[in-house]
Amino acid sequence: MEELKKPRPATSDPETPLGYLERAATVYGDCTSIIYKNTTYTWSQTHLRCLRVASSIASLGIKRHDVVSVLAPNVPAMCELHFAVPMTGAVLNTLNLRLDHRTISILLRHGESKLVFVDKLCKSLIQDAISLFPPGTPIPRLVLIDDDTKEALPPPLSSSPAVDFLCTYEDMVANGDPGFEWVRPLSGWDPLVLNYTSGTTSSPKGVVHSHRGMFISTLDSLVDWAMPKRPVFLWTLPMFHANGWTYGWGIAAVGGTNVCLRKFDGPLIHRLIKAHKVTHLCGAPVVLNMLANTPVAEPLTHRVFIQVGGAPPPPVVLKRMESLGFVVSHGYGMTEAGGLIATCEWKPDWDRLPESERARLKSRQGVRTVGRNRVDVVDPKTGRSVKRDGLTMGEVAVKGGCVMLGYLKDPLGTAKCLRDDGWFYTGDVAVMHPDGYLEIKDRSKDVIISGGENLSSLEVESVLYTHPAINEVAVVARPDDYWGETPCAFVSLKEGIRGSKPSEKEMIAYCRAKLPHFMVPKTVVFQEDLPKTATGKIQKFILREIAKEMGSARVGRIQGRSRL
Amino acid sequence: MEELKKPRPATSDPETPLGYLERAATVYGDCTSIIYKNTTYTWSQTHLRCLRVASSIASLGIKRHDVVSVLAPNVPAMCELHFAVPMTGAVLNTLNLRLDHRTISILLRHGESKLVFVDKLCKSLIQDAISLFPPGTPIPRLVLIDDDTKEALPPPLSSSPAVDFLCTYEDMVANGDPGFEWVRPLSGWDPLVLNYTSGTTSSPKGVVHSHRGMFISTLDSLVDWAMPKRPVFLWTLPMFHANGWTYGWGIAAVGGTNVCLRKFDGPLIHRLIKAHKVTHLCGAPVVLNMLANTPVAEPLTHRVFIQVGGAPPPPVVLKRMESLGFVVSHGYGMTEAGGLIATCEWKPDWDRLPESERARLKSRQGVRTVGRNRVDVVDPKTGRSVKRDGLTMGEVAVKGGCVMLGYLKDPLGTAKCLRDDGWFYTGDVAVMHPDGYLEIKDRSKDVIISGGENLSSLEVESVLYTHPAINEVAVVARPDDYWGETPCAFVSLKEGIRGSKPSEKEMIAYCRAKLPHFMVPKTVVFQEDLPKTATGKIQKFILREIAKEMGSARVGRIQGRSRL
Repeated sequence: MEELKKPRPATSDPETPLGYLERAATVYGDCTSIIYKNTTYTWSQTHLRCLRVASSIASLGIKRHDVVSVLAPNVPAMCELHFAVPMTGAVLNTLNLRLDHRTISILLRHGESKLVFVDKLCKSLIQDAISLFPPGTPIPRLVLIDDDTKEALPPPLSSSPAVDFLCTYEDMVANGDPGFEWVRPLSGWDPLVLNYTSGTTSSPKGVVHSHRGMFISTLDSLVDWAMPKRPVFLWTLPMFHANGWTYGWGIAAVGGTNVCLRKFDGPLIHRLIKAHKVTHLCGAPVVLNMLANTPVAEPLTHRVFIQVGGAPPPPVVLKRMESLGFVVSHGYGMTEAGGLIATCEWKPDWDRLPESERARLKSRQGVRTVGRNRVDVVDPKTGRSVKRDGLTMGEVAVKGGCVMLGYLKDPLGTAKCLRDDGWFYTGDVAVMHPDGYLEIKDRSKDVIISGGENLSSLEVESVLYTHPAINEVAVVARPDDYWGETPCAFVSLKEGIRGSKPSEKEMIAYCRAKLPHFMVPKTVVFQEDLPKTATGKIQKFILREIAKEMGSARVGRIQGRSRL
Repeated sequence: MEELKKPRPATSDPETPLGYLERAATVYGDCTSIIYKNTTYTWSQTHLRCLRVASSIASLGIKRHDVVSVLAPNVPAMCELHFAVPMTGAVLNTLNLRLDHRTISILLRHGESKLVFVDKLCKSLIQDAISLFPPGTPIPRLVLIDDDTKEALPPPLSSSPAVDFLCTYEDMVANGDPGFEWVRPLSGWDPLVLNYTSGTTSSPKGVVHSHRGMFISTLDSLVDWAMPKRPVFLWTLPMFHANGWTYGWGIAAVGGTNVCLRKFDGPLIHRLIKAHKVTHLCGAPVVLNMLANTPVAEPLTHRVFIQVGGAPPPPVVLKRMESLGFVVSHGYGMTEAGGLIATCEWKPDWDRLPESERARLKSRQGVRTVGRNRVDVVDPKTGRSVKRDGLTMGEVAVKGGCVMLGYLKDPLGTAKCLRDDGWFYTGDVAVMHPDGYLEIKDRSKDVIISGGENLSSLEVESVLYTHPAINEVAVVARPDDYWGETPCAFVSLKEGIRGSKPSEKEMIAYCRAKLPHFMVPKTVVFQEDLPKTATGKIQKFILREIAKEMGSARVGRIQGRSRL
């Protein structure tokens, strides 16, 4: 046996999700790949368009492992670039378009992006981002995505020709070579994507995933959701979030249809479901709220499967969704582990339990997906599983091919979570129940999840600390019926200026000038002193309790509006 | 990027299909895992039974990479041993129980099997096989699978205590430790299974697959067949054939039910489908024939998906199956590539074509499954794709993690097909159609497929050559309406004995004494001289044409009988 235990050229041919596209063109060539407004493509058209774009990218001199960024909502180009960019050997870097220009600027420089595809709505965002590049820093070239007009390039953006657009995306399609021979990875460990997990200005976390990792994650996600062939997938999950939980590639693998959109609200989702017979969609819990709160004339005539990440949906929302004909499942995941890593698999027996018990069971994050080797709750000191008693706290840890290669340019950060004991440590605190279902008890201490976006409370704090009147600040999550959570800042002011203390409104305006909109505190609470431990550490858990008791600030206030 | 391009402990945690069992016990613990006669198990029972058996195997001193064999039909033990054997670190070696004792003897010695699980129906087969072990050869220990009586061990098999059974399988369950900590592979490249592809006595081909290979193959097969969760899978495909095309593990991955059986015929399959609401089954084309030829009182009340390997089903059978409510798909695979590697994915548009055209399209082997990196028709001299013209012949070649590690103890045989150019060469001759569907034109020259079993014509010839009256012999496939093909021997006799020439019946009896039943020629044609090339090589293609023109010998003669 021993002599056989090794890779050979045939067995170690690199696995990559890029191969799904070629196959889709062969098997599903005449089937619809993308629907967007009045545009419809087939898989054989999408295949050729991707080859053309890839050839145009390559002709710019983009080489293996160069970073190519995309700043766009879920338009067809975003689907295509999931293949076209890595088909040149480059690394795909989709950016969160909810970030502000300062953060975008930092991320583009951190990733050393060579080329950025920019949606028409992000023109000033990219211009402002690039204007912050220090002199002498190489500036990425820009391509404009303008799916509506398809007209020629607009007049120059600025007086600096450096931030002008090279061409439009459709120019790249038109001028590209459909016979382009795409660049296969040299090894399964070659980088495929670079995904930034937070907009922190101090130390960007650039998650790099390999071709083999995403190949396995994609198959895993398809099996775990029991995805049929030729699903109709509505893109209510931003593709810049962990590549749409791998469905950016997975829909090609099963020959499905991508229903693309720029922004959405409840009525639009309902309309698209009906018009295109949508079968599957994903998103943050806010998507469920939109759907549940939209009055509909009639229930669905077919089953629609919805997968939500993050917090389990509240029972009342779930009930409403089920009565409308939706089949809702929820899972837990993170960019570092390549998408959803655990899902709360429902057991038929549980249907018979009383509602409160059902809600308790449903509130757990669940069980590892079948392709994730191991997802466990372990003692971070020993790497050993904690007791399965639903009480003993530990850290969620993951092993398997779906885990990231590491953080770009951050060997310390990488070593901190990808430890030598063989586990990737998520930072999330959880318990393991006796039945093997895990439940998150406390997320990475400083993360607030608002409308599906993770934001770092530390970063909001660091901005507030720059305010001349502030003595101390702590930002925690305040529950929100609509967004899930919003940032809530507890502030103590400096002694001298107590007489003319700034208002909540002023504080919020101050943050808005310096932070992306979703990171701005929606509540500011002034306190004489923040609660502290004997050693002087702010006791955030007390503030979290206070924020929790405050309840949601905005029931129904902004229902039906989307942040996309 | 460069510094990230490497495996780390978390990302290189070995992928293995064994992990599916633990997860099934967690998620599907109360769901039915196995149905067999009056016995039913749940996934949590199956999990514990596997751990118990694994602990009993380990307590015999079986170590990592030792070979443990199984000689059994599709009984529950066969399902369980797919997990229990490798959970000890050992390599699972399921043997084709249609082989004769001489071949079994050779294979056990070739694999150096340390332990054999023997079904009660194979008692004399194993006894006879072991009796052929030369003195001094280590003899494997034996465990009896007797699921019916569950009584104590029978009296000793023979005067030699060496071939006695150590205990029964149920003893191993009863005495095993359910808390056994299973032995994880040290690397994904560790061997998981050893599968012999042919009974050839001269050079056994022992295909060794890795844990990671079968992990990927299993997920791939589930996605490719769009397997739902909790399918009910009827085991009409022998698990000793490429591990039931990976469904031996795959059914655990999706929490399905294994409906086990020892042997089957058309009426039994129909009965089981109805009784257990079977949703999926696989098999050789002969299974379709059985089903199509069984008169049924009423059509199915639910859809049943059937996957057949090898030859495409004839249109008349297909039509009948569809009218009964079956959804038939067919694929092409081989043990070396870990199961089905291409399936004839049907396109909706094709439904509108005339029947003859539909039959032509359906007769093609199709397109690679989504998890097989590459399946192509290439020029074996250059490794380059042949023209996609449906005319240019080439060899089917495969790349990807699903390909075997190699042949056990056969570096030359391994190097011959796992070539340095990066391809695994199947030996099958095919064309690639312009639409990217491949069609096998000539199988590995010497393979005849009868009732789903591959048999080597060379091996049948070598037995016939031992007959004193035979001058020359060539064995080719004769088409058979029921078995697909049967071996047909063309024989020229020696000069001297022409007067008292042996009969067809005698020749068949001669082979029967020396070969497994399914390898015995069903037809013997005597010829003065066999057709030869100028250089004296027998022109088998002429004989194949003759055999083809003879047509099927046995229309309906043995319909409804199974060889299992």
